[in-house]
Amino acid sequence: MATLTNGIPEKTIERLSEYRRTLLASHRQGITHIFSHVLAGIHGITAVQVRRDLMLIGFSSDTKKGYDVQVLIEYISKILDSPAPMNIAVLGMGHLGQAITKYFNGKGLNLKITAAFDVDPEKVGRTIDGIPCYHMNTFENMVEDRDISIVILSSPTKVAPELVLPIINAGIKGVLNFTSTPLNFPQGIVVENYDITTLLEKVAYFVKETDASNT
Amino acid sequence: MATLTNGIPEKTIERLSEYRRTLLASHRQGITHIFSHVLAGIHGITAVQVRRDLMLIGFSSDTKKGYDVQVLIEYISKILDSPAPMNIAVLGMGHLGQAITKYFNGKGLNLKITAAFDVDPEKVGRTIDGIPCYHMNTFENMVEDRDISIVILSSPTKVAPELVLPIINAGIKGVLNFTSTPLNFPQGIVVENYDITTLLEKVAYFVKETDASNT
Repeated sequence: MATLTNGIPEKTIERLSEYRRTLLASHRQGITHIFSHVLAGIHGITAVQVRRDLMLIGFSSDTKKGYDVQVLIEYISKILDSPAPMNIAVLGMGHLGQAITKYFNGKGLNLKITAAFDVDPEKVGRTIDGIPCYHMNTFENMVEDRDISIVILSSPTKVAPELVLPIINAGIKGVLNFTSTPLNFPQGIVVENYDITTLLEKVAYFVKETDASNT
Repeated sequence: MATLTNGIPEKTIERLSEYRRTLLASHRQGITHIFSHVLAGIHGITAVQVRRDLMLIGFSSDTKKGYDVQVLIEYISKILDSPAPMNIAVLGMGHLGQAITKYFNGKGLNLKITAAFDVDPEKVGRTIDGIPCYHMNTFENMVEDRDISIVILSSPTKVAPELVLPIINAGIKGVLNFTSTPLNFPQGIVVENYDITTLLEKVAYFVKETDASNT
């Protein structure tokens, strides 16, 4: 990701997000303390990695009982979350857009999907999984109106390049791109390109290598 | 990802997959040569990074006209692809499973989604987007029958832990997990956990940091 990192590596940010979800689930189960090696085991990494990540954000209150779950949740949240919740729009309410929307509904995150956009008359004007779906030609106005700062791009791949300009013009600050066209935006707009083909080809490559090393 | 890497870093493997898709698209447009800085521009990275990645896989035939597109495609394919196509099954044919299946159909990759599994009577026994959907209780037999080596996990999150044992028993070698439960498998099974919440929280974090550095 071409952006400033404030000293905290991208991978650490990803893991902090993952730790927090595990900690929240533990908290709901009434667990008050957790050891670094337990957290590490759940995420398939080493305890050293967990301790290094938490040291990077200045958290070091590891006691004999392990980390205080609630304190650690609050600490990570202070790093990851912005003071006010951020509003998110989904561009493209096909299967992927709907899967993402459904998935986020009622998760109680600091991030809220508040609008969806499409051009399909079957979708525009409807509320899908609790999210109102608007026509794409209202996008720029709606972004200002609803204070939307991030978009999830789940449109058909061939449409994606046409969406770059509206996204820039609307003043969007972050893009999570699930189409298979890598998109470039001007500096100052954060972009993550996540192509499912890449993920799958990566798994396939390591399967092939693991096979080769076993024979 | 906890696996052996054969000296090529994970991130390089991801980029090779991305380069290849761009090269294939260029090839279809009749482009025969491409400069490292052009490839870099498309992917929002530096030309140095592109050259470093290709050097890592031993490719260095950069001429005055740039890289030969077809030769580079073949070279990358020899690194990424296994000699025979790998068969993939999708576990969970909800919105996400269907989005992934639709997305892959007819892409002509070395990876083929050949079966889907679900427990919903509305889906089992049907062919969805060209992929036959079977009942989950036939999974282990079908994996052997159809020589399936990789699964995409797109089931509801709460079901995911129940799928670990069938996946191990069936002899699956690679798992791409899209649910929000991190899953651990024995050594020898390659796992990628891709939680959409993590991706989104990461974008949000860098938006927050970019904002902070601009004020």
